[in-house]
Amino acid sequence: MNEAPSSQFSAESYFATQPAPPTLEHDVAGVRAFVARQRELGRKVVLVTSGGTTVPLELNVVRYLDNFSAGTRGATSAEYFLQAGYAVVFMHRQFSLQPFSRHYSHSTNPFLDLLDVDPQSSDSQSPPNISVMPSKRAELLEVLQAYKSARALEQIHTLTFVTVNDYLWLLRAVSQELSVIGRQSLYYLAAAVSDFFLPRQKMSEHKIQSGKGSLIIEMDQVPKILKPMVDEWSREGFIVSFKLETDPALLIPKARGALERYGHQIVVGNDLHRRKYEVVFVSREHAGQDISEHWLRIGPGAINALGHPKEIEEDIIAELVKRHDAWIAAEPSAN
Amino acid sequence: MNEAPSSQFSAESYFATQPAPPTLEHDVAGVRAFVARQRELGRKVVLVTSGGTTVPLELNVVRYLDNFSAGTRGATSAEYFLQAGYAVVFMHRQFSLQPFSRHYSHSTNPFLDLLDVDPQSSDSQSPPNISVMPSKRAELLEVLQAYKSARALEQIHTLTFVTVNDYLWLLRAVSQELSVIGRQSLYYLAAAVSDFFLPRQKMSEHKIQSGKGSLIIEMDQVPKILKPMVDEWSREGFIVSFKLETDPALLIPKARGALERYGHQIVVGNDLHRRKYEVVFVSREHAGQDISEHWLRIGPGAINALGHPKEIEEDIIAELVKRHDAWIAAEPSAN
Repeated sequence: MNEAPSSQFSAESYFATQPAPPTLEHDVAGVRAFVARQRELGRKVVLVTSGGTTVPLELNVVRYLDNFSAGTRGATSAEYFLQAGYAVVFMHRQFSLQPFSRHYSHSTNPFLDLLDVDPQSSDSQSPPNISVMPSKRAELLEVLQAYKSARALEQIHTLTFVTVNDYLWLLRAVSQELSVIGRQSLYYLAAAVSDFFLPRQKMSEHKIQSGKGSLIIEMDQVPKILKPMVDEWSREGFIVSFKLETDPALLIPKARGALERYGHQIVVGNDLHRRKYEVVFVSREHAGQDISEHWLRIGPGAINALGHPKEIEEDIIAELVKRHDAWIAAEPSAN
Repeated sequence: MNEAPSSQFSAESYFATQPAPPTLEHDVAGVRAFVARQRELGRKVVLVTSGGTTVPLELNVVRYLDNFSAGTRGATSAEYFLQAGYAVVFMHRQFSLQPFSRHYSHSTNPFLDLLDVDPQSSDSQSPPNISVMPSKRAELLEVLQAYKSARALEQIHTLTFVTVNDYLWLLRAVSQELSVIGRQSLYYLAAAVSDFFLPRQKMSEHKIQSGKGSLIIEMDQVPKILKPMVDEWSREGFIVSFKLETDPALLIPKARGALERYGHQIVVGNDLHRRKYEVVFVSREHAGQDISEHWLRIGPGAINALGHPKEIEEDIIAELVKRHDAWIAAEPSAN
């Protein structure tokens, strides 16, 4: 596995040569209506991106490159943003975890195991009652009520992507829609986005045949879209990106590098194996140029105020809400 | 994207050089106990493999190659095998669809939308009752009862894989365990298995850095394991493999080629875009050498005996049960 020089795509050349997903206009219209409604209600809005992106190797997709991500960080964080009163645009990889239902993964906690058929009603004409077992009620009730509340308050809007191309087009369009609320918008870019892609022009139409030899795939670099996001798409938004590394020695230098290169507000750095217990906020000190590091850590056995195992996203979101409020208060036109 | 000659792995050299997954022994012990129990009960046993396999590009996995598959074929088929009285070893990709819960995908039919909090019990000390909305009961009841029945009868055993390496080691071990019931075993190999892999010896330890250039990946071919499966691991099993193509012109030639090469019982051919409406059984005529094709088709609006939309897996499994029974009856030692 190695790297070779290649023609570099800028964001501009990317969008000029790669096709928009067919559902883009429909998705954008939905976001526009949602943002308009939140603006009337005076709510802050966060875009949460979540899950991995795919890079299809064929036009009729059988094989693809993917990025490891179940979507836990994004789905969990969305719940805490809702709890903090934000409206949430939840833009996630198809089939990745979602807020609330994440607690009942089909593998680890299948919901069919929660249900009992009520024996009393079996003589009636209508189907018997099916209810949640008494021992499972308390936990489910909390999740269910938070879910129903977010729905009733129209506080969440969900968008789906699969490929890195879907993601890039959607991110640009949603950023432009969110920019109408200026500093009230927060971007929480937790999706695991591929650094590489295969331009449409290089894809084979049908399934690559295995034949007799090895497979060689050569991919181009995905354009760095944080730069146009900060400079053009959403100049006043509070932008939080994530940096995941597996080599702890690279985490801080890579996170600082990203902040310097793109000029956004915060890079949240996390190590693949420690990401549930510690993250580092890398950001500029106030208006100055000095970059500071701020670690958030929880112990493996930490318990929250409700008596449940603590999730680090609770602290991440609490810290971000504080910083976002300061960002809103510092609005130049408000002075 | 292109192919180059490479050192070809045989099944033997593969298992001699690639490490076994750490959970293999534990998984095998579970299968052994399950098969022994089914043998006592005189049940036929089917191994259903389902979902795609990954090819990690790094030891600390961030990126991987994957095969498109939600696991619909396998999860759906497992339900019909259970209904036909088979015991099922359901060996599936982590997070792919599973029998029964597949009807309630978190994306298309989230189970939280089925539930209501019962208002009457809110004054009690214990948490209020949570029950399934009356309008959703009939449909859920059918699924729930089939699920509970399969569990109560200990008719299903679930195994999980992620990488193509997990899959290959597990398939070999499970085949060897199932071989103790001879012709009573059926193999329904519906998983979408990668044709290529990256040998452990060629993987980079950490996340590949994106740097300045393009990414070039060179992968080796996965050994053809149907051959040792037929010749060594499970000589008497009834083996059904799947061939998915996107180019309809390749479907029959590829399916016939696989049958000739490996000498197993049936190749089920399916086209990516038509796979829910038609499949072709490619098999040998009785003991002869002539290969025949048998198409199964359902209309897009087909309804089954219970008044639900018909799934083609119902017909696939009915046809396979017939053929498997003939295979059992034809046992040489029984004559």
